[in-house]
Amino acid sequence: MKKSLGAKTITYPTPVFVVGTYDAEGKPNVMTAAWGGISCSDPPCISISLREATYTYHSILESKAFTISIPAEDHVQEADYFGIASGRDVDKFQATGLTPVKSEVVNAPYVGEFPFVVECELLQHVKIGLHTQFIGEIKDVKVDESLTEGDNSLIERIKPLIYTPDYPAYYGVGEMVERAFSAGRQIKPG
Amino acid sequence: MKKSLGAKTITYPTPVFVVGTYDAEGKPNVMTAAWGGISCSDPPCISISLREATYTYHSILESKAFTISIPAEDHVQEADYFGIASGRDVDKFQATGLTPVKSEVVNAPYVGEFPFVVECELLQHVKIGLHTQFIGEIKDVKVDESLTEGDNSLIERIKPLIYTPDYPAYYGVGEMVERAFSAGRQIKPG
Repeated sequence: MKKSLGAKTITYPTPVFVVGTYDAEGKPNVMTAAWGGISCSDPPCISISLREATYTYHSILESKAFTISIPAEDHVQEADYFGIASGRDVDKFQATGLTPVKSEVVNAPYVGEFPFVVECELLQHVKIGLHTQFIGEIKDVKVDESLTEGDNSLIERIKPLIYTPDYPAYYGVGEMVERAFSAGRQIKPG
Repeated sequence: MKKSLGAKTITYPTPVFVVGTYDAEGKPNVMTAAWGGISCSDPPCISISLREATYTYHSILESKAFTISIPAEDHVQEADYFGIASGRDVDKFQATGLTPVKSEVVNAPYVGEFPFVVECELLQHVKIGLHTQFIGEIKDVKVDESLTEGDNSLIERIKPLIYTPDYPAYYGVGEMVERAFSAGRQIKPG
């Protein structure tokens, strides 16, 4: 038997995306968002949803670009802070001591100390309700060079966070369960 | 130093969403999708991206509804199969022995044996490129009653899968790293 939890925004996993932008004065800012994911293979796109009340919402509309930096487990405190404070009031890079790095491919900064970055140009935006979805075309994806060696998914070396909306917390990634496009081939239609 | 991986659809984590629909004849079908995520808090929405070539794409446009069943680790084989086979050719429920359960709130079936379900009505769809994004309004979220007890996130009892696009595989969820909206409060702007 299943129990209803109501019409709530719960699913698993949800990501911890640190969205980087320049504001109208060119000041770098970051905010943490858990509403988003890859949204197209060709052109390669990733979508993030933001409230109009956020500072980042307006920066993306002006600069037409954003990055997504993926924090590792050891930067969970900074990732959480980036979701609490507003770039309107504080310089979040200064407060955390982390480094804004200007992307070479899009007009947005990323967090130098985070191991993985997705660099995007704004392709379109869609107002849904409280949130507006920004669909970014992925122009490049970068990873720390020191993490590239290995015969498994980068996820094991990046150690990204998972956000759980039902009980607000961050989880780590566990072990590999199966290879994809492989395990299912043993099932034959009867 | 960061190394470029090119303009690829890689991010972490991506979900393993098993999308349930009825086709034009009312036959239940499921397919696995990793492109998607929560996209609005009010109304509560979740987005999934599908290619027009899929059977599910057309079923959603006709039925205006879909569910997302979240498979647990012990159903990784079935989840993988649901992403390989097409409902045009086979009855995936019959092939796997899993049970299509008719949703009481939307016109779509879900997988009875999977522990967590999100039930959606189609709110809008947005053509991006190869993929079209279906934005579903969440009408209810359900979890196996046996998993509801506990003083932590449901993620620990559901044991959902994570898909890794760079090295196609499924991973499990690890341990809690930190509570959210808490760890970051120790950082004070300088």
